[in-house]
Amino acid sequence: MSTYEARLAALREQLKADRLDGFVVPLTDEHMSEYVGTYAQRLAWLTGFQGSAGAAAVLPAEAAIFVDGRYTLQVRDQVDGRHWSYQSVPETSIADWLKAHAPDGGRIGYDPWLHTSDWVVKAREALASKGAELVAVRRNPIDAIWSDKPEPSKASLVVHPDKYAGKSSAAKRQEMADWLRERHADAAVLSALDSIAWTFNVRGKDVDHTPVALSFALVHDDGTADLFVASEKLGDDVRQHLGNGVRIHERSDFEPHLASLSGKTVVADPERAVAAIFEALESAGATILRDRDPSVLPKATKNQAEIEGHRAAQARDGAALTRFLHWLSIEAPRGGLDELKAAAKLEQLRKQCGDLRDLSFDTISGSGPNGAIVHYKVNEETNRPIEMDSLYLVDSGGQYPDGTTDVTRTVAIGTPTSEMRDRFTRVLKGHIALGSALFPEGTRGTQLDVLARQFLWAAGIDYAHGTGHGVGSYLAVHEGPQRISPAGSSQAGGDEPLRAGMICSNEPGYYKTGEYGIRVENLVLVVPVEVDGAEKKMLGFETLTYAPIDRNLIDSDLLTAAERQWVDDYHARVLEIVGPQLEGDVKSWLEEQCRPL
Amino acid sequence: MSTYEARLAALREQLKADRLDGFVVPLTDEHMSEYVGTYAQRLAWLTGFQGSAGAAAVLPAEAAIFVDGRYTLQVRDQVDGRHWSYQSVPETSIADWLKAHAPDGGRIGYDPWLHTSDWVVKAREALASKGAELVAVRRNPIDAIWSDKPEPSKASLVVHPDKYAGKSSAAKRQEMADWLRERHADAAVLSALDSIAWTFNVRGKDVDHTPVALSFALVHDDGTADLFVASEKLGDDVRQHLGNGVRIHERSDFEPHLASLSGKTVVADPERAVAAIFEALESAGATILRDRDPSVLPKATKNQAEIEGHRAAQARDGAALTRFLHWLSIEAPRGGLDELKAAAKLEQLRKQCGDLRDLSFDTISGSGPNGAIVHYKVNEETNRPIEMDSLYLVDSGGQYPDGTTDVTRTVAIGTPTSEMRDRFTRVLKGHIALGSALFPEGTRGTQLDVLARQFLWAAGIDYAHGTGHGVGSYLAVHEGPQRISPAGSSQAGGDEPLRAGMICSNEPGYYKTGEYGIRVENLVLVVPVEVDGAEKKMLGFETLTYAPIDRNLIDSDLLTAAERQWVDDYHARVLEIVGPQLEGDVKSWLEEQCRPL
Repeated sequence: MSTYEARLAALREQLKADRLDGFVVPLTDEHMSEYVGTYAQRLAWLTGFQGSAGAAAVLPAEAAIFVDGRYTLQVRDQVDGRHWSYQSVPETSIADWLKAHAPDGGRIGYDPWLHTSDWVVKAREALASKGAELVAVRRNPIDAIWSDKPEPSKASLVVHPDKYAGKSSAAKRQEMADWLRERHADAAVLSALDSIAWTFNVRGKDVDHTPVALSFALVHDDGTADLFVASEKLGDDVRQHLGNGVRIHERSDFEPHLASLSGKTVVADPERAVAAIFEALESAGATILRDRDPSVLPKATKNQAEIEGHRAAQARDGAALTRFLHWLSIEAPRGGLDELKAAAKLEQLRKQCGDLRDLSFDTISGSGPNGAIVHYKVNEETNRPIEMDSLYLVDSGGQYPDGTTDVTRTVAIGTPTSEMRDRFTRVLKGHIALGSALFPEGTRGTQLDVLARQFLWAAGIDYAHGTGHGVGSYLAVHEGPQRISPAGSSQAGGDEPLRAGMICSNEPGYYKTGEYGIRVENLVLVVPVEVDGAEKKMLGFETLTYAPIDRNLIDSDLLTAAERQWVDDYHARVLEIVGPQLEGDVKSWLEEQCRPL
Repeated sequence: MSTYEARLAALREQLKADRLDGFVVPLTDEHMSEYVGTYAQRLAWLTGFQGSAGAAAVLPAEAAIFVDGRYTLQVRDQVDGRHWSYQSVPETSIADWLKAHAPDGGRIGYDPWLHTSDWVVKAREALASKGAELVAVRRNPIDAIWSDKPEPSKASLVVHPDKYAGKSSAAKRQEMADWLRERHADAAVLSALDSIAWTFNVRGKDVDHTPVALSFALVHDDGTADLFVASEKLGDDVRQHLGNGVRIHERSDFEPHLASLSGKTVVADPERAVAAIFEALESAGATILRDRDPSVLPKATKNQAEIEGHRAAQARDGAALTRFLHWLSIEAPRGGLDELKAAAKLEQLRKQCGDLRDLSFDTISGSGPNGAIVHYKVNEETNRPIEMDSLYLVDSGGQYPDGTTDVTRTVAIGTPTSEMRDRFTRVLKGHIALGSALFPEGTRGTQLDVLARQFLWAAGIDYAHGTGHGVGSYLAVHEGPQRISPAGSSQAGGDEPLRAGMICSNEPGYYKTGEYGIRVENLVLVVPVEVDGAEKKMLGFETLTYAPIDRNLIDSDLLTAAERQWVDDYHARVLEIVGPQLEGDVKSWLEEQCRPL
């Protein structure tokens, strides 16, 4: 019996012992984090699936794994089809599948620390139609059988200095207190890890590429707070930094502590706080105010110090990327380069540029056809040489104490085809249209998304991902609440009004399966714009990312005069910002790349 | 005591007699129609308010009237502030106001035939917090005191021939029956008047400018139907046309008939069917399936006959409008013209062009500053002369058996300022960008809206209305479900996917209060577009409206070469389609107007 077959059998035994007829296994942690620590990777342990999103449902005689379109091939590769049926989301939800397969009157378990209330309500309804019951487990049955389950990370917290945060934690908590009092609420639950890091001006190392720490918090209407975090993570400097206004508890004290909120009005965010939190508050006799986590909007609208920090980090990051592109231009034609080597070199150059704490995500390093796989993750098996007359796409970023970066460049190795240049230029035109947009306050991301797609649509093509996401300040590289995406997108955020201080990515692309991928990404800052004769307050985008765009891929004939000017102006700014950090050959190369078209 | 003061006093007496402490008076009919017959104009009767949207709430000692931004001035003009307080929606809802003003434990009446379930739920919640009760009345108290209340229209139905409808009523009902069976439903309620007219291929005259008849219907899963309409409206030709599959009842039999649906599963549309219908179904013991009225989508996606019909009606309508614009060009400079005379002339020319059944809405005829009032309705008091060196905006349309039209033209009388030409050209550029858009199937109106605004946004200006609405086939001039509008708009429909066969208006504008208004509107048809090398099914817009655009307002320097080409191509099509219907001076004038820029 294979490892995974044995684990599935063991789970079924455990479920019998727990008097359950089934169990749901999502890929989340207690904080609905985008990336999940190894201690929480139950889906991978049980099924072998290594993708970043998915879920499974186990019944006595059947089991199913649910993944979206990104992973259709990967799941069949990694998960044994003899024991697991493959289900596609969003076409088939877990609730749908359970409704069809659960035994009548069955008891289906779920871990209330790993699902939102919304999910619980829908699943409960679906099962009710079969007379089946959704049952919250007190202990996750997988934890009972996963004998060598890793411990959560023990990394220490560090202080995030006010010079980067731009506002003290006490001031942030005071503003949240005002917000609470306006709503006649006593406290708010913070369970999203980046919300907590931002609110307390601390950083951690408990999640890959995101400097946050496993924790929970309550912020009160007097500005004080309770912070629930493993005490071993807190050195004296952090305790002193947190100060008297923050009462420190063990992370495991969070659920019991909620019981003390009887009679209080507590804000909990239905999109961020897991079902167990809502259930604990209800049991405690608290009044729940379902509203967004009050740190989300201030975290998204960067203050002056955060903005200056991002500009500084981007300048250094741009220099590192520029050095990489120069190195690539020399090494690639020589042969012998591959995706892994390139990614490693880029990481090394970022480390050298100053203050790199981590990458902000696993570098997407896609040569030729691999560039067409939108969420491509290179490893030893998939690693491909970088070859002549192909496109190389690299999407990468860093975590610096003053800012988080995320940038994509597509370069032609050797001679690109005219089709590649046509597609690249259409992508670039879209990037320019979005980056140059002026729009009134209150405009949502869904309203602007078409600006980036329109030149691809004119050729009957498109890209199957959003156009832009928010970015944190030495926090998550994918940060809400805003998104620039099509209406009706499955991911929320496109209808959040854009505000000055928000940072968004601007990343249209085009992917020809089996051949090549193109993406042009800069980060942009939403800024107020003074327009002569304006009748409304207008916003626009200031570019934060500066690195050369491959002129060999630009078909100038497809650009309007204004678009050519945009490219020339952009490259002139690259020279101003990145140039002084370079010298010798690299600098001369950059000057050549940044010549007017 | 003034008339309205007496009516308010009489209502309060009636409420006492009915054991009510208050009553809500909306501006709707039993069908949630956009325009309401005089028999249902209770708000106007009670308060004197003549606007097309609003509501009132009456308590023993207080009364309030609720209107939106369009009517802030008008309501103060028409409604006596000594007896009514003026409330602004959406800032203050009726529910909010009642919550603040209703007597504790009070009984507040509402007519369940005039509100949606959603409204009832919200109002009930708001009142509950005061221990007050929302009470459905069996008889509207205003009807008890409105002694000379008009009867509903007695106009007869007419048959809408298959040659225009493109599909028999039996076939439409059979498709609805399939739809019902897919959902395991027995029947669907149709209460929207245009839904009923479309489904049964009949037309009426019971609502201003919309050829529909006061009626209700039930369509069953075997394709048969029950139609509830005053028998006096049905001549033998209509009865024969309806055939055996349609059982005819009096309109007043509808509510009792719902009681017979015990144990059935009935589809009712929460956006269209009033609360009384839901309440009757619940009392009957029917299972309610809350879903959209099944005629809405097929009605919106025109079939070939409807499309051909629209094209033919538009061609004639365009000729009438062209004759009007020619006449205007000659008469206006002579002086002596005013808004009413112009509107009357346009209506006369439409009548002469063939088959006009009615205007599709009250013509918006706005000279100079009146053009800046978006929903301007000219009357003897507001009537303004059409003067030299001003702009004249005319938004008008007709009801023809083969199609419904709606078009706006803005013309310069004399010499426009350079600012007028700049604003007009920006509006035109937006109109062209939207009209020329190519987009994948599934795209929503909110995604395209920015294309029409972007050139105004670039100058820090905007227009405070949607960009496009759907249009019926000899039905409502404002027809859902789709809209082209900003995300977050208060009116629904912007997130409805656009489909081939839908007709939309394309009507950006710019309004300078106190000076002038600009709008350029054509109707466009969503059509599939073959694009060489396309990887997705693409859609685009085919223009349906053909009438010259005022070249004196176009600043060609602001147009790109492609935009100039669009104007020239459009005007060439105007000549092809409208030209042959004209002769003599009008024709020569048109040829001059349609010269390449």
